[in-house]
Amino acid sequence: MFKSCWCLCPSAGLSAAKLLKASGLDPVVLEARDRVGGRTFTVQNKEAKWVDLGGAYIGPTQNRILRLAKEYGIKTYKVNEQENLVHYGKSYPFKGSLPPMWNPIALMDFNNLFRTMDKMGEEVKQLVYWTGCTPIPRDAPWRAPHAEEWDKMTMQELFEKLCWTRTARRFATLFVNLIVTAEPHEVSALWLLWYVKQCGGIMRICSTTNGGQERKFVGGSNQVSQCMARELGDRVKLQSPVYRIDQTGDMVVVETVDKQTYKAKYVIVATPPALNLKMHFNPELPPLRNQLINRVPMGSVIKCMVYYRENFWRKKGYCGSMVIEEEGAPIGFTLDDTKPDGTVPCIMGLCRKLSSLSKEERLRRICEIYSKVLGTDEALHPVHYEEKNWCEEEYSGGCYTAYFPPGILTQFGRVLREPVGKLYFAGTETATEWSGYMEGAVQAGERAAREVMCAMGKLQPNQIWQPEPENDEIRALPFVTTFWERNLPSVDGFLKFLGVSTFLSAAAAAGLVAYKKGIIPRS
Amino acid sequence: MFKSCWCLCPSAGLSAAKLLKASGLDPVVLEARDRVGGRTFTVQNKEAKWVDLGGAYIGPTQNRILRLAKEYGIKTYKVNEQENLVHYGKSYPFKGSLPPMWNPIALMDFNNLFRTMDKMGEEVKQLVYWTGCTPIPRDAPWRAPHAEEWDKMTMQELFEKLCWTRTARRFATLFVNLIVTAEPHEVSALWLLWYVKQCGGIMRICSTTNGGQERKFVGGSNQVSQCMARELGDRVKLQSPVYRIDQTGDMVVVETVDKQTYKAKYVIVATPPALNLKMHFNPELPPLRNQLINRVPMGSVIKCMVYYRENFWRKKGYCGSMVIEEEGAPIGFTLDDTKPDGTVPCIMGLCRKLSSLSKEERLRRICEIYSKVLGTDEALHPVHYEEKNWCEEEYSGGCYTAYFPPGILTQFGRVLREPVGKLYFAGTETATEWSGYMEGAVQAGERAAREVMCAMGKLQPNQIWQPEPENDEIRALPFVTTFWERNLPSVDGFLKFLGVSTFLSAAAAAGLVAYKKGIIPRS
Repeated sequence: MFKSCWCLCPSAGLSAAKLLKASGLDPVVLEARDRVGGRTFTVQNKEAKWVDLGGAYIGPTQNRILRLAKEYGIKTYKVNEQENLVHYGKSYPFKGSLPPMWNPIALMDFNNLFRTMDKMGEEVKQLVYWTGCTPIPRDAPWRAPHAEEWDKMTMQELFEKLCWTRTARRFATLFVNLIVTAEPHEVSALWLLWYVKQCGGIMRICSTTNGGQERKFVGGSNQVSQCMARELGDRVKLQSPVYRIDQTGDMVVVETVDKQTYKAKYVIVATPPALNLKMHFNPELPPLRNQLINRVPMGSVIKCMVYYRENFWRKKGYCGSMVIEEEGAPIGFTLDDTKPDGTVPCIMGLCRKLSSLSKEERLRRICEIYSKVLGTDEALHPVHYEEKNWCEEEYSGGCYTAYFPPGILTQFGRVLREPVGKLYFAGTETATEWSGYMEGAVQAGERAAREVMCAMGKLQPNQIWQPEPENDEIRALPFVTTFWERNLPSVDGFLKFLGVSTFLSAAAAAGLVAYKKGIIPRS
Repeated sequence: MFKSCWCLCPSAGLSAAKLLKASGLDPVVLEARDRVGGRTFTVQNKEAKWVDLGGAYIGPTQNRILRLAKEYGIKTYKVNEQENLVHYGKSYPFKGSLPPMWNPIALMDFNNLFRTMDKMGEEVKQLVYWTGCTPIPRDAPWRAPHAEEWDKMTMQELFEKLCWTRTARRFATLFVNLIVTAEPHEVSALWLLWYVKQCGGIMRICSTTNGGQERKFVGGSNQVSQCMARELGDRVKLQSPVYRIDQTGDMVVVETVDKQTYKAKYVIVATPPALNLKMHFNPELPPLRNQLINRVPMGSVIKCMVYYRENFWRKKGYCGSMVIEEEGAPIGFTLDDTKPDGTVPCIMGLCRKLSSLSKEERLRRICEIYSKVLGTDEALHPVHYEEKNWCEEEYSGGCYTAYFPPGILTQFGRVLREPVGKLYFAGTETATEWSGYMEGAVQAGERAAREVMCAMGKLQPNQIWQPEPENDEIRALPFVTTFWERNLPSVDGFLKFLGVSTFLSAAAAAGLVAYKKGIIPRS
């Protein structure tokens, strides 16, 4: 099959194709799987009605994905957070995004850690610069003042430097596990600081209300891709994994495992960077890109949905959000996944213990920990279970997103979005806002589409990067910090303060004693 | 083309195929490139006669590759190390494997660092256990007593813990750059300790005489692969990159980019782990392997050969081995590459600065640093230059070998050699002795061939791993350590000793004074 067309690969590719089509061009989307949507995956069945086994959450500031959803009439609903959250290991219920600490030393430590991370993140991300007449945001964490130093450090090293208490270090580890499905010792500190900041900071990334987990789509997140695919019609070719891209002629020749050949003027490769390796390139990719795609692995997570007859946790005053700190616990974080009308009670949990447990064994261990945390045997009696191990997906490589091990961002980061001949790169990993999320995929896809239009002379270079107006229904509220959050000293600062005041008091006391005893001459 | 055959991929695959053929089987080798040999690459031209632009060095204890070379009548010669070595940055000539230190603190530090690394390495590698009636060596660094702790640490973190002086830390960095073409902050400490140990320890891995760099093959290292390929005849298919492996039927179906289809009972995949990603698998690989191949990048190096009219360095009393410690120097390590008969004077240098310099610019900068280190303008006038940037090779991904970033070996290491259905894994990365070297490729290839023979019932499981008798010409000598090397304290120990003795002397002196002054009652 020979066609003169645009050729694109999964997921973020759909939003690129949609924009290209809307601009009067004729794109084709080559999708490796037998379904569209990539790392979003909605399953429908009678037990669960519908369930998102992949990317699911959206929130304020994610305006591009909200724009698409609105266009297709897909509604959102708020994830339940009315009752109390539980922080197990500490085991007390609380309200808000981050669990409170009763131990004042831990509280100071905790407060200082997240405040410092946000401050460091600002340094990394302030390098967003604007060029040309119209602003073109470009982010370049590899140029930050301390880029080299922070990239040589793992996040675990940074935690060891910043934290004084085991409590803070353990919670920080859980935080990294949750937001990037990797371990603090696996990721570069520079990269993680950048990642948190490009989502809007610690509070935005980890909050349910007013944050990245505020909402879900009624009917499932996969609908957005399905609607785009429907709009694109037979331009979307399923079960068409690309294995070869040849740029040696006038047209780019793309071959798929199902033995089709496509020809195109330009190609947008919209896979995670590592999956570029699935393709054989002629000519070979440039050295830095050839090595980059080898160096940015995908995170590891199994999404586990446990269904119950009754929503017993709400009755006990828990909203279903749990932060679980226990050695060997299969799940570290949960959210209520009951349908917005209160039917199909369900708890969604993220599992990072990649042991060789069977599905049944995993469910049993999950129910046991839920029962312990929620303090009721009701958790031991699920009525249904769904899970998705993203580590086994050949055409994702893992979930949610690619992480950067130490040393990679400063050496290879700058070629992440750099076109290679007629190849342009999309995929959420190439985004500069909410990279790693559905929002990032849309930003990346649309940016890559505009890069291609620019190469064709249909756009000016300063039109490639476009800011997105805020959604008029789902608005971001500022996170108000308290006086204490801003001004509480770090443990370090507190100890120094204690030390200085102890010294001053002691000196004063000693002086007084000496004076009284006549050791200092009363001249 | 449909054939009932064995199907194998590049390089280590040749030694597997050779063994299979010798055992009466009918293997086929599918080679992605237009030449055999993978990461060994010998070029012939009138200026250089022959030059190894890839893997080149062999030495004692590498008995399998030496056995193959002997079989094909390929001779070895010793790399010149008769005159002095230079350690620039310190800038003095020396003899032996490691540069001496004049500063006694640095000397202690240095001695302690390498002694400690060897001791830690023993702990990691002592887990070689032997099962069955005939010994089956299996190494499992992920089971070492401190595996988790050391795998969470980068090598840089370990250096920071072990080294007191900048001198030792800088040299240690150069050491890592040289042996694994990566940075200390990029690699897991556990993995690096294992890597050094499986080559026989610090002295064996970094020595020229009596170590891994003792010899080269007369005529180039690629000859070994060429001879094997010649023996295998038209069983070797060049320019046949595999893009698809289907195990769903009785026979494994393998498809290549040049549109051939092969069928086989078993397949040995003999690529570096990351290049498994070039293939589309049906069924998908198991989750741990799917993620492993995403997590073990190849090192980065450009091999640079500078040719001169005259061997001016020997005349000045230098053998051509340089260790160069200078900020921004393009080359960190060199060896003499003059032919064994003294013709074609040449210096081989390893470049890890992956800047976008042109070939000419790189040559100029290399000559400048050589001129500085050797103290003569003669180095500024090369007569010829050859280089090979391994980072640009699609079918290697980099050189010399795969490295393990922090956290990967303990989580994913155990599936490195684990067969998947009818797929077996070779490649030097899967070896347990001299992994990362030509020797490791041969060990891995022959082991994988025996695994397949075992699966066919032609061998017992305890025959899969076979020790190799020592080569009768190239024998390993023990490295004799001096009393001081074994017993010199660490800087830490020395300071503690100083502290204790200072305290004791001070206490004794104070006691004496007190006694003399009558403060202590002379009862």
